[in-house]
Amino acid sequence: MAIRTAPAGEFDARRRTVSAGLRDRKLDALLVWLSPNLRYLSGFTGSNGALLVLPGRGDLFTDPRYDIQAAQETTCQVHIGKGPLVDAVLSAIRRLGVRRIGYEPARMTCDVFESLKSHLPMKSSLVPVRGWIEEMRMVKSPGELDLIRRSVQTNSRAFERTVGRAKPGMSESDLAAELEYRMRRLGAEKPSFDTIVAGGARSALPHAQPTAARIAAGDLVVVDMGAFQEGYASDMTRMLFLGRAVPRLKQMYAAVLEAQLAAIDAVRPGVKAHAVDRAARRVLERHHLGREFVHSTGHGLGLEIHEPPRVGKKEKTMLEKGMTITIEPGVYLEGLGGIRLEDTVVVTGNGCEVLTPTSKALRTL
Amino acid sequence: MAIRTAPAGEFDARRRTVSAGLRDRKLDALLVWLSPNLRYLSGFTGSNGALLVLPGRGDLFTDPRYDIQAAQETTCQVHIGKGPLVDAVLSAIRRLGVRRIGYEPARMTCDVFESLKSHLPMKSSLVPVRGWIEEMRMVKSPGELDLIRRSVQTNSRAFERTVGRAKPGMSESDLAAELEYRMRRLGAEKPSFDTIVAGGARSALPHAQPTAARIAAGDLVVVDMGAFQEGYASDMTRMLFLGRAVPRLKQMYAAVLEAQLAAIDAVRPGVKAHAVDRAARRVLERHHLGREFVHSTGHGLGLEIHEPPRVGKKEKTMLEKGMTITIEPGVYLEGLGGIRLEDTVVVTGNGCEVLTPTSKALRTL
Repeated sequence: MAIRTAPAGEFDARRRTVSAGLRDRKLDALLVWLSPNLRYLSGFTGSNGALLVLPGRGDLFTDPRYDIQAAQETTCQVHIGKGPLVDAVLSAIRRLGVRRIGYEPARMTCDVFESLKSHLPMKSSLVPVRGWIEEMRMVKSPGELDLIRRSVQTNSRAFERTVGRAKPGMSESDLAAELEYRMRRLGAEKPSFDTIVAGGARSALPHAQPTAARIAAGDLVVVDMGAFQEGYASDMTRMLFLGRAVPRLKQMYAAVLEAQLAAIDAVRPGVKAHAVDRAARRVLERHHLGREFVHSTGHGLGLEIHEPPRVGKKEKTMLEKGMTITIEPGVYLEGLGGIRLEDTVVVTGNGCEVLTPTSKALRTL
Repeated sequence: MAIRTAPAGEFDARRRTVSAGLRDRKLDALLVWLSPNLRYLSGFTGSNGALLVLPGRGDLFTDPRYDIQAAQETTCQVHIGKGPLVDAVLSAIRRLGVRRIGYEPARMTCDVFESLKSHLPMKSSLVPVRGWIEEMRMVKSPGELDLIRRSVQTNSRAFERTVGRAKPGMSESDLAAELEYRMRRLGAEKPSFDTIVAGGARSALPHAQPTAARIAAGDLVVVDMGAFQEGYASDMTRMLFLGRAVPRLKQMYAAVLEAQLAAIDAVRPGVKAHAVDRAARRVLERHHLGREFVHSTGHGLGLEIHEPPRVGKKEKTMLEKGMTITIEPGVYLEGLGGIRLEDTVVVTGNGCEVLTPTSKALRTL
């Protein structure tokens, strides 16, 4: 059974778009090293590969471990090589007489670049291409939106089923284990990032790893979780209060919720991403929590958990229908704790749809 | 609670080793971009960071999300910057007047390299450094061996507890979910790679992803799994037969087991890695399965699931006491199925110790 993130036709269409765009960029080919861009253009999900897109053809290079799988997953011509991928790619470049070859400097290590460059045929050259495929990936197809929707639903169901049974005295890492298990049983391949479960003062670490510490009565617990399902990411953050929250934390929660709703309200096609960030930041500043909001308001997600556009202070990307982003303001007070609320949303024709179905009411266990 | 992979003193000692080695390499500093090398030298586990090691000092650069965590995890001087890391690193290079800066071309993207290079002070230069830290990492300290041992034990226990309850009719992905859940409950942070569970003819895909397909009576199922525990990896492959295996598969199993044991027998200090690969390959060739053994015999593991030395045909690295490697020959027949057996072993003073406690007897569910 092949693992496909979309019908084969969708991958072919994407490669045709790239083929058609080569001439404008004065390129004869685009070389895509292993990355979500490769999966996006070929359907191949293995852990070692390179793709060469030329007008009218796509050539995928991988190793013998993926012989059968590559044939199932992609309509590209598959080349199986036992040696370094660079050698196989270079010999195709020679054989096909490719001259101007676009490469992705954000996705390629210096070592791969140097090995390619030092063995290129005399008349060939490598030309940096920045953000082309990432830009294509920003606006999701209906098929991709379906997959993201399913990933979001799996994630929220896993949260509900787990939290419904969570009890004081569980360790952070056991709670994370339950969340990830539920995700998988509901159809996810894996978490889209290391699940964050952090109780008490540790919730003030925006990217805390779960520890053996037990969540205790009176604690505030941050849960930040996401799934990869059929390759597509979801991302959500919710807060749990074990017992009654102190008034200061309740105030913080209300402020973050207000900021999150304001940012969601600001999402619509034609608006620049920084305006959405501004909407959240303005609310928190009004609550004198501007300095405690130490990160961006959100990020794009799809085949990667973080992909363009960033929803940050300086991000000028204009939002478009079909973009999927997170909205996740948060405030962190060392010693006291942190509060963050996060949804996955999709830009629609006249605003946005919040995909995450999980309630944002202050939740007490 | 800080997450440490070793006592702080061990990180300090590693940076002292690097400091002491700078002069021989005609370097004034080593720049380590985010990678397991950074964790190895600093203790920092965040997802964004760079480290500059100079004689007598270590400077860690990260972003505000990791403000508190970095202070807990590392004894380096921590620099928190809101902008790109490159800017923070460049300003330290300027401030400290560092001239010859080693960088790791296998770990740095072309984009990061270009941004650094184009803003470097006049008298500074970037010098490629290949494999230095990876070489240090090959031989594990007693503390690291303890962590790997624990990771291996967690992994094997998770296998035993899950397989003891597995039944025909379960889907591949549900079985994988159970395995990963058990790992986590036993102390792992996460799987060290995507767990492989593949039944029937799909077992012939060396790197199959679990699907919704149900494992059925008569199936042969490959389970390849590993944990990351306190940052350190384990890796094991076992085969399950649901019901009676056909004679051809039993023969293949016996041949792979013989090859695996022969390779383990070949592991000792002073032997080159390719001799271990050869030992496995020779057995399989004798069984006319040489062409079906499409990958290397094994790989080093530690902070990464794949790290040097590779146990492959051409690998000349001399094995040393304290190296941890996998031994995992496998044979794959399209349409019929694949057989692989894998243990994690550590090179000892006069041979090796198989860390993986799980039985290799042909296992029938």
